[in-house]
Amino acid sequence: MLPRNVENFIGCDSAYRTAQIVLFGAPYDSTTSYRPGARFGPAAIRHESYGIETYSPYQNTDLTDCEIFDSGDLELCFGSSESALVDIESRAAEILRDGKLPLLLGGEHLVTLGSVRAVAARYPELHIVHFDAHADLRDDYLGAQLSHACVLRRCHDILGDGRIHQFCIRSGDREEFEFAARHTDLHKFDFTGLAELTQWLCETKVPVYLTIDLDCLDPSAFPGTGTPEAGGVSFLQLLDAIRTVTRANIVGADLNELAPTLDTTGVSTATACKTLRELLLALVHNRPHV
Amino acid sequence: MLPRNVENFIGCDSAYRTAQIVLFGAPYDSTTSYRPGARFGPAAIRHESYGIETYSPYQNTDLTDCEIFDSGDLELCFGSSESALVDIESRAAEILRDGKLPLLLGGEHLVTLGSVRAVAARYPELHIVHFDAHADLRDDYLGAQLSHACVLRRCHDILGDGRIHQFCIRSGDREEFEFAARHTDLHKFDFTGLAELTQWLCETKVPVYLTIDLDCLDPSAFPGTGTPEAGGVSFLQLLDAIRTVTRANIVGADLNELAPTLDTTGVSTATACKTLRELLLALVHNRPHV
Amino acid sequence: MLPRNVENFIGCDSAYRTAQIVLFGAPYDSTTSYRPGARFGPAAIRHESYGIETYSPYQNTDLTDCEIFDSGDLELCFGSSESALVDIESRAAEILRDGKLPLLLGGEHLVTLGSVRAVAARYPELHIVHFDAHADLRDDYLGAQLSHACVLRRCHDILGDGRIHQFCIRSGDREEFEFAARHTDLHKFDFTGLAELTQWLCETKVPVYLTIDLDCLDPSAFPGTGTPEAGGVSFLQLLDAIRTVTRANIVGADLNELAPTLDTTGVSTATACKTLRELLLALVHNRPHV
Amino acid sequence: MLPRNVENFIGCDSAYRTAQIVLFGAPYDSTTSYRPGARFGPAAIRHESYGIETYSPYQNTDLTDCEIFDSGDLELCFGSSESALVDIESRAAEILRDGKLPLLLGGEHLVTLGSVRAVAARYPELHIVHFDAHADLRDDYLGAQLSHACVLRRCHDILGDGRIHQFCIRSGDREEFEFAARHTDLHKFDFTGLAELTQWLCETKVPVYLTIDLDCLDPSAFPGTGTPEAGGVSFLQLLDAIRTVTRANIVGADLNELAPTLDTTGVSTATACKTLRELLLALVHNRPHV
Amino acid sequence: MLPRNVENFIGCDSAYRTAQIVLFGAPYDSTTSYRPGARFGPAAIRHESYGIETYSPYQNTDLTDCEIFDSGDLELCFGSSESALVDIESRAAEILRDGKLPLLLGGEHLVTLGSVRAVAARYPELHIVHFDAHADLRDDYLGAQLSHACVLRRCHDILGDGRIHQFCIRSGDREEFEFAARHTDLHKFDFTGLAELTQWLCETKVPVYLTIDLDCLDPSAFPGTGTPEAGGVSFLQLLDAIRTVTRANIVGADLNELAPTLDTTGVSTATACKTLRELLLALVHNRPHV
Amino acid sequence: MLPRNVENFIGCDSAYRTAQIVLFGAPYDSTTSYRPGARFGPAAIRHESYGIETYSPYQNTDLTDCEIFDSGDLELCFGSSESALVDIESRAAEILRDGKLPLLLGGEHLVTLGSVRAVAARYPELHIVHFDAHADLRDDYLGAQLSHACVLRRCHDILGDGRIHQFCIRSGDREEFEFAARHTDLHKFDFTGLAELTQWLCETKVPVYLTIDLDCLDPSAFPGTGTPEAGGVSFLQLLDAIRTVTRANIVGADLNELAPTLDTTGVSTATACKTLRELLLALVHNRPHV
Repeated sequence: MLPRNVENFIGCDSAYRTAQIVLFGAPYDSTTSYRPGARFGPAAIRHESYGIETYSPYQNTDLTDCEIFDSGDLELCFGSSESALVDIESRAAEILRDGKLPLLLGGEHLVTLGSVRAVAARYPELHIVHFDAHADLRDDYLGAQLSHACVLRRCHDILGDGRIHQFCIRSGDREEFEFAARHTDLHKFDFTGLAELTQWLCETKVPVYLTIDLDCLDPSAFPGTGTPEAGGVSFLQLLDAIRTVTRANIVGADLNELAPTLDTTGVSTATACKTLRELLLALVHNRPHV
Repeated sequence: MLPRNVENFIGCDSAYRTAQIVLFGAPYDSTTSYRPGARFGPAAIRHESYGIETYSPYQNTDLTDCEIFDSGDLELCFGSSESALVDIESRAAEILRDGKLPLLLGGEHLVTLGSVRAVAARYPELHIVHFDAHADLRDDYLGAQLSHACVLRRCHDILGDGRIHQFCIRSGDREEFEFAARHTDLHKFDFTGLAELTQWLCETKVPVYLTIDLDCLDPSAFPGTGTPEAGGVSFLQLLDAIRTVTRANIVGADLNELAPTLDTTGVSTATACKTLRELLLALVHNRPHV
Repeated sequence: MLPRNVENFIGCDSAYRTAQIVLFGAPYDSTTSYRPGARFGPAAIRHESYGIETYSPYQNTDLTDCEIFDSGDLELCFGSSESALVDIESRAAEILRDGKLPLLLGGEHLVTLGSVRAVAARYPELHIVHFDAHADLRDDYLGAQLSHACVLRRCHDILGDGRIHQFCIRSGDREEFEFAARHTDLHKFDFTGLAELTQWLCETKVPVYLTIDLDCLDPSAFPGTGTPEAGGVSFLQLLDAIRTVTRANIVGADLNELAPTLDTTGVSTATACKTLRELLLALVHNRPHV
Repeated sequence: MLPRNVENFIGCDSAYRTAQIVLFGAPYDSTTSYRPGARFGPAAIRHESYGIETYSPYQNTDLTDCEIFDSGDLELCFGSSESALVDIESRAAEILRDGKLPLLLGGEHLVTLGSVRAVAARYPELHIVHFDAHADLRDDYLGAQLSHACVLRRCHDILGDGRIHQFCIRSGDREEFEFAARHTDLHKFDFTGLAELTQWLCETKVPVYLTIDLDCLDPSAFPGTGTPEAGGVSFLQLLDAIRTVTRANIVGADLNELAPTLDTTGVSTATACKTLRELLLALVHNRPHV
Repeated sequence: MLPRNVENFIGCDSAYRTAQIVLFGAPYDSTTSYRPGARFGPAAIRHESYGIETYSPYQNTDLTDCEIFDSGDLELCFGSSESALVDIESRAAEILRDGKLPLLLGGEHLVTLGSVRAVAARYPELHIVHFDAHADLRDDYLGAQLSHACVLRRCHDILGDGRIHQFCIRSGDREEFEFAARHTDLHKFDFTGLAELTQWLCETKVPVYLTIDLDCLDPSAFPGTGTPEAGGVSFLQLLDAIRTVTRANIVGADLNELAPTLDTTGVSTATACKTLRELLLALVHNRPHV
Repeated sequence: MLPRNVENFIGCDSAYRTAQIVLFGAPYDSTTSYRPGARFGPAAIRHESYGIETYSPYQNTDLTDCEIFDSGDLELCFGSSESALVDIESRAAEILRDGKLPLLLGGEHLVTLGSVRAVAARYPELHIVHFDAHADLRDDYLGAQLSHACVLRRCHDILGDGRIHQFCIRSGDREEFEFAARHTDLHKFDFTGLAELTQWLCETKVPVYLTIDLDCLDPSAFPGTGTPEAGGVSFLQLLDAIRTVTRANIVGADLNELAPTLDTTGVSTATACKTLRELLLALVHNRPHV
């Protein structure tokens, strides 16, 4: 009697019932304006994770010691953003209802909005920490308000001023930077200010949603993404930032914008896998009592 | 005083006023369910056309003898299909109003619907001749009625039974083939029946819209497309079919589904350029009095 | 309560208990002498199968009407051929013991030997029908007797003269063709003779193992393989051959040598998926009483 | 005492002294107007030849039975066409002087001119048989008379009317086809007429130079070339044409326009290797007394 | 009445009459000795510029505030270097005559010579600032004096000793470094010394031509170039150097050696676009009175 | 009389008799568990070396001043690890016997074991300095003890505790790091400690084997390898480490794990060539009396 063929992110094969963290993929990229392909991100991360180890020599811990469940990818309708967001929100809400941390794998950055809707409904005092090359603060993009280029603006519609903390931002139009100056906490170019912010987040214990657009990394480290932007941070800087910010009260998270079709060498996918491993280990390690 | 940098499909640099045929691109692929990239099709066809000649040894005519205007690409909103279709319909309608033949370059096959709406509004007795590997007759795809997989079904909504003539079809779900058996004139696998149909179209002089999904070609000849489907026709068979059907009263046409990002050798783009040249020459040659 | 993430070849989600056919992958290519990559074949076929339909307009049947179970890939030890073959043989034997037809997905062609060992143990009067560009009849390759280039020779060691029927062969060294002239039933270049052979196989009802090296296809149709060899058959010829030979008493089968890393356009993978669908449908359709 | 690392085309390791045929490469592509890369052709053919066999099941002969010497590639000066042609002519003349047949591997098609200069100097009554998608009969290309697009025109300057026999031609500007109608023996699209021509060449015993631009092949069979042109011949048609024309008195030959950088799957390089093997075997087989 | 399809580098759509800076492309790479492809550089930069913003958060300025005209690409004759240089020189001279700054996009580095000839004719006291991995100081390369590997040597022929300032140089043969020691101001490996040089250039107000070979960047940041050379500078270092040196009296500039065909991920093209944006903004910002 | 076509790494064309260093390639990768391709490494390094110079501006020396012989690649049997190791050991032993330093080019890292066996047989007091992202200390990998993932463990079997010095290690399972803590001198992440170690090695004059897995480099600098691992060192750090450690008494060395098929831009191959040049120059420069 042969078993069915189950595919997980490496080391994430706990039972759903006992899991602390639940992975789910949102293979959507219909609003990507430049180069599509992020839809293939979550499947590639899951599939290629067998090229890395479950053990981290950075954190000296192992995924096999953690309780994580990988629920696979949602089946989303291409070309219909609101419908995709409803499905994402619904999955995140179910995971939250079961007392677990939802960890969303994109897909383009718009998918974050579905998850943030669910998390903000449960935690109205939510803050967002946002690592990205792009401000994503447009009010609309060629007429569409649901666009990857507007996703943090839509989050601002929900959360209001001063609750969005942006790092590594090095691209946007002039209006986005002007909007940020009035409404968000935007840090240009790198992680300057993250340590101070984290200390405040830890002290206040406010719930935090962490959204990582992998294009915050320099294109040399992460070419496989729709809109690569020179002048970004290194993998080790991102790893350090993840280990810092996860000391706060993270209640939801996502990792997005890997576009495997643009990752001709496979290095970006391998780096996304390693980033996810370190993020998972940091989340588990820094919240042992959840 | 240096002139501006104008880019046309090779040999298509007539004045708009005198043009018989007007090219326009619809760089849209948001509903592509499998592998996106067709958005880059029209720009690639225009750009790479400088690798072919304007002269055809098959038809012994030359694009430089024709009056064709290339209006470039529309700027469409990704992730918002109805809005994209409105823009396409509006451009096609304008060209028709000026007494010219609109020749649309996709993009995914859904863009055909915008053009067909405009042409059918002007020619209510319109027939469609459809070359494609896929039937595209689903009523919806994962809930979306505006999808590349539904585009001929939407055309059927407009035109009704017996007005859609499909060739080379070799993929679809069972329901699509059952729908075709009742409502369209579907020819499986190749161009069998096209000569007879053309004779009838010529005799009745009904207006005809020609829509060519380049994946009707065998993947060996045309790998650079979102959903390659083995068992298709050769380039010479397609060329022959184009020269046949253009003897009918063609009032609008399109060529779509080149995805240059999937065309790793450039052969598909070169073949799309050659197909467009032959289509343009056949259209001009077979309608000298328009 | 979210379910686990199960991955099947499209439409192959029966229960193991009720399945007539059981798929299993052997991701092995350590003896590939020219260009490796076939190890990624079975996972790619499974993953990319979602780009094709379950319905065949050629056979007018649907995978959703069949009872097929996909047991995923074996975990094989690279660089240790005998150990890999033992694992393959053991899996095939288990499937045969349960009264089902084992359908192996390679991997390099050497994997066939594991399956043939199991099938020949159960059916000592076994014949093999072999579609391939290469004779694979060397006694050793650079000293190794377990090599993809020797796999049919090893099968001959088991079955003896006159039991191996080879088609489409267009490459080999002089000694292989001389060996074939004395010991196998080799047909050069195409499927000439297959109809006659099939009639004899049907009349005698001998058990038949069908091994398909996808490089029997012309490289224009199937470039993504380790040793492409110009001058092969078309997809439609292969489809016809499959539908012919499956009228015989097939008791085991395999499909191998897709190397996705060499399939830069994805066309070969899509073609492998379509070939597998048609093979499965033909096997089920032609053996309704098993 | 370790030997030096010698690289030959497979099976071509005779001593220079005893060789009947001498291979030499001309890695030049500076005048390529569309997509460069043919400079890497001869090295790729030599390097990748280890993926094919020395034995041909088509001709039932083996390279190891032949006397062929591979002299490697010339070191040519990029951007300086006349200087490159002088070096090619000089090498071809040396080989001819030693009573051997020079077989040149391009490079872009312009390199043929160097070889033809040497061969025509020795055989003033020379005819050329030319397999190509393109007529290559322009008088100049953007001002340059030494261009791949002019190479047969330059040969016509040397040989005059009626001595150039062109096959498979399916691209050129109008003037080239008009020139051909007056001055060369041009056969459009395929090998129609080659059998008759060969019979005449055999009867008259005139010396013949055979130049094969591999883009005479259909792009499905041979995508890896600078200017792919749909509608070409198959590998088996080319093989048949080679076996036909080599019955004439061939005194020099070349094979050109493989561009490995455009050959993303490696299939074109493998096909070029197989074509060269068959050409060498046909040349040796059909001229046993040289 | 539809307008013609004009293509500019993003935000560079001023009228020629009012423009301060004029872009022009020189798609030439015939002397490239290693890996060609730079011919496609200028078109790729123009085309892909729609993936970046017109606004720079580094300089807090916007291309839409500048007066820049993009005149497209010259049509150059491949394989004929002197003829190409004449056309480049002529275009640069025309732009200078109209009182505007010529900004040349290569192409291989040889194109710089055409532009320098024009600029030096107008400004005999010209200095050159040269960012590059390679010294480009050979007297000839395989016999050719007009070669990318000789371009700064040819500039030295015009300008003489002490007028060429080279930075980031980390490759060359021994003779080039010896020549530099006697005749140019060569700084190995990075931008050490650029601040001091700029101060002197500013004080003396000498006219300066800035030539940037993008391979001064490390291959991790800029793989898409003909001769990548490990050990280069980062994008942020190059950005800083550009902002520094543009404080001098720049009277002409170029950016070259992007080879899009080698840029498999698109990251190099995106980085070239961003570099050009920052260079344009720095030139405009630092010379407001021109 | 034309000479044979000899291929060397650039500048390494001494006679065997006078050579101090002998290069040999081991094109083997059958145990690679993730992504094969390293088999093509040595040929690519040799072939592409013509894109770099023989002169180093870092060390101000030139390969043309050195006595180095390139013996080409061994012909190894794929899928048979022990047999491949025997051939490697035998070649290394022959070179050592002739009083020369063997420099092995891999291939996967397992090939090191063949060379270490020969060197340790001659120098029983041997130490190994190991640069790598991976610890390679497993006792077996999926049952195989001869695996790239076990190669340093196998070396430990020969040399025992305290003789293996590992740098840049950032991946492994927990057991490997625990093994290292007890048995090897492992330095995580970078070259910290190398200067101190080298001083000790110089003082004690112990014989040292240097094995460099190029994946010690960060994937941004070296993507073309089977198992890229984010967070590595830069090329300049590796260059510095090589120049440091070669002051010790190096008696054998290797450079491995370039996988050209994964090096889509060619940058990794170019970097491997430059690394080999610098390694050769450092070895010659630091051991003038050998």
